[in-house]
Amino acid sequence: MREHTPERDPEFSKASPEALLRELRAILAPDSLITDEELLRPYECDGLSAYRRLPLAVALPEDEAQVVAILAACHRAGVPIVPRGAGTGLSGGAAGIEGALTISFTRMNRILEIDHGNLTVSVQPGVVNADLKAAVAAEGLFYAPDPASYESCTIGGNLATNAGGLCCVKYGVTRDAVLDLEIVTAAGKIVRLGGKNVKDVAGYGLMPLIVGSQGTLALITEATLRLRAAPAPRTTLLAFFPTVDAAGDAVAAMTAGGLVPVTLELMDQFTVRAVDDVHHLGLDRDAAAMLLVESDLPGPAGLAEMEAAEAACQAAGASMVLRAADPVEADWLRQGRRLAYRALEAIGAARMEDIGVPRSRIPEMLRAIGDVAAAHNVTIGTFGHAGDGNLHPTFVVGPGEPEAVALERITAAKAALYEAVLALGGTVTAEHGIGASRQAWLLRQRGEDAVAMMRAIKRALDPDNLLNPGRVLG
Amino acid sequence: MREHTPERDPEFSKASPEALLRELRAILAPDSLITDEELLRPYECDGLSAYRRLPLAVALPEDEAQVVAILAACHRAGVPIVPRGAGTGLSGGAAGIEGALTISFTRMNRILEIDHGNLTVSVQPGVVNADLKAAVAAEGLFYAPDPASYESCTIGGNLATNAGGLCCVKYGVTRDAVLDLEIVTAAGKIVRLGGKNVKDVAGYGLMPLIVGSQGTLALITEATLRLRAAPAPRTTLLAFFPTVDAAGDAVAAMTAGGLVPVTLELMDQFTVRAVDDVHHLGLDRDAAAMLLVESDLPGPAGLAEMEAAEAACQAAGASMVLRAADPVEADWLRQGRRLAYRALEAIGAARMEDIGVPRSRIPEMLRAIGDVAAAHNVTIGTFGHAGDGNLHPTFVVGPGEPEAVALERITAAKAALYEAVLALGGTVTAEHGIGASRQAWLLRQRGEDAVAMMRAIKRALDPDNLLNPGRVLG
Repeated sequence: MREHTPERDPEFSKASPEALLRELRAILAPDSLITDEELLRPYECDGLSAYRRLPLAVALPEDEAQVVAILAACHRAGVPIVPRGAGTGLSGGAAGIEGALTISFTRMNRILEIDHGNLTVSVQPGVVNADLKAAVAAEGLFYAPDPASYESCTIGGNLATNAGGLCCVKYGVTRDAVLDLEIVTAAGKIVRLGGKNVKDVAGYGLMPLIVGSQGTLALITEATLRLRAAPAPRTTLLAFFPTVDAAGDAVAAMTAGGLVPVTLELMDQFTVRAVDDVHHLGLDRDAAAMLLVESDLPGPAGLAEMEAAEAACQAAGASMVLRAADPVEADWLRQGRRLAYRALEAIGAARMEDIGVPRSRIPEMLRAIGDVAAAHNVTIGTFGHAGDGNLHPTFVVGPGEPEAVALERITAAKAALYEAVLALGGTVTAEHGIGASRQAWLLRQRGEDAVAMMRAIKRALDPDNLLNPGRVLG
Repeated sequence: MREHTPERDPEFSKASPEALLRELRAILAPDSLITDEELLRPYECDGLSAYRRLPLAVALPEDEAQVVAILAACHRAGVPIVPRGAGTGLSGGAAGIEGALTISFTRMNRILEIDHGNLTVSVQPGVVNADLKAAVAAEGLFYAPDPASYESCTIGGNLATNAGGLCCVKYGVTRDAVLDLEIVTAAGKIVRLGGKNVKDVAGYGLMPLIVGSQGTLALITEATLRLRAAPAPRTTLLAFFPTVDAAGDAVAAMTAGGLVPVTLELMDQFTVRAVDDVHHLGLDRDAAAMLLVESDLPGPAGLAEMEAAEAACQAAGASMVLRAADPVEADWLRQGRRLAYRALEAIGAARMEDIGVPRSRIPEMLRAIGDVAAAHNVTIGTFGHAGDGNLHPTFVVGPGEPEAVALERITAAKAALYEAVLALGGTVTAEHGIGASRQAWLLRQRGEDAVAMMRAIKRALDPDNLLNPGRVLG
């Protein structure tokens, strides 16, 4: 389903790439520069496969000094850079750019320090989210942000996209977890932006600006992140509803009631059935929607939270509410939700959206998704982080459908979906990012004046347009 | 204690001020432009009285259209603008600038909407923090950020300084509470930066950049802030310690133990005695330091939190631990802490600092403060938000001391204090801001390359240096 193939920018190859590659070979270890076309293939695209271009080469630096040297060499050669973590992103932000060098940070994957006194962890950008979680959990600590791809995505990518996940409703997004960044600027300077201070107002907030800028303003070479004491084991509740409206009402009631469960996830009937087909969890296949609600409060507080959540579900008209009997069953149910996208992919080509709306508008948004699917004759499976107002309506193309016809319908349906989102005061991307794929909608959502401010900042910090050019701002 | 009087910039008066004032009179209501010298006096300085200059005039706009028109007129006249809330800031950020127009937002003080479904409140910038808190509390909701000056400071000023306060340890700073801003750019454009979406990654994080920029990047004309369900009534504990080290150890142990009390405040002996002199609370005047710890968790969870805090205090060697018998007594004790600075001012001229250190370094920082006081023969009373690592060592000059001599000693002691802070990985300002007063230290703390990035952003967003020139970046 390719829908966009950026044109090669003649600026990007003004110097001989061979001269640059020679320089890079001198900087990097022998196996740390990939130029062979077959080995470059995995770097063509990220998790959004519609955007794919073979980069000039891929560098895998092992330390910051190499990053600085690579940047200087690219600067001299006029060759732009695409920074990349695990390539699990879903906005095309880490897709290759023809004539550009992709820098993969996967070999800078050391956990540098776990600081119990300050509840922080300092890492290189290539550390995998799950490895970080496991390392701190082994010491009784907890790193909250958990994108669905946490078993493979890296912290550097999480920072670049300001990644969300399943427990943002309680613990916030990646930006909220950052205390310090070490970056390399477009000019090749190593700059430290924060520290271990939980409050610090010395100068402008550069750190929250760099987080989420998808590698277009600086390269992140180190991060210090907030930890928490490990919370209590989760208690888990599943609620099934006869209509999506009823599920949406339950979510809205929990928000308005001030409940802050650690997880508040939704799956619609199509997704429930897809998950159940693959994982045989015994879900209620006749329900129109399902909510997964979890508490990580200890003892009676956790029980009270679950009671309140159950009451909200019942009041909204739940047809069935069950609680996981034990942590193993809870893990199993949660895993079902995590695998929702893969279950939809098992049906056919799946294309996930990433909309967000104010939480009170979830019932309206769910109705709008149904209306869009009907009007455009497309299949949409919807799941997502209902507690944040973040839904992932996913267009699913059955194996028998001709791709060209499906793509045309999906393109029209997507535009209608985004219009509905904006009409409800929502966002076209709650956690995946603008990347290469939603730039026209960025302009629609934020307006020309806000985008002009972003462009002015981009020019100020990367005047030669060296860092991930054409991403976020186009 | 004047230590800095910025020179008049000849650029600021290139046009006739009379022409500008005529334009402003046409824009504003008759009583909304102050030009009389006596009436301008209160606008000379903010809460940091060392920085004072009479502005050209003060405009008190009543709506956003007036703000836009004022900005356009100032732009044409080449006259810079100082935005101002209640003037309670402590960095000279809202002090007058000779030849510049101060815009006071105090008449734009409407609460526009309290949204129960999304737990948000939308306000104009001139709303007083306490009025906002009271309005939402009346509807069972809670706005967390509470600077010590909350009874007079405005939300606009809170946003401009990224203000902290007494419950950041649990609920974060002002930046963490912001979901949407409407701003007027230096170019006079009205731009909306967010929405009611709790997750939103469409484009760069302009909002967290504007928050804390002290009016140097844009004027804030509206904000939407996060609310929470009203927490349980607080339970309150006071602990007294025989040494400041022991109190510091108790704080470090609570942090490392993962406790997140809603308040974790410290006062040293000098401050305890000053507060007790004024307020007669019956505090232990022989203790070297006191901690105030509060929980707003309901029922048994709150009790468990207080038990854990008390255990940490006892283990660190507390000489006495007491719990407030009831909410009235708790309010009374908390008020004592809030009035610490005023109690120190009652002794003589007081000059509050605003340092922050990683929380594990609090015992070292408290020792360093003692060392600085001894080495420089100055009196320092220390209190602050120990749970955040944010302390307010306050230089106190007794009524008998000659001011010039005291100022010289304090200037040297302050430099030694800041050096100690930076040696511990701290910040020279945790919640008050760089403003007009700490610019040389911003450079020391962040380094030239980080400050160069800030300057590039300033130039990009305010190319004519119209907005609060010379503040933050100098």
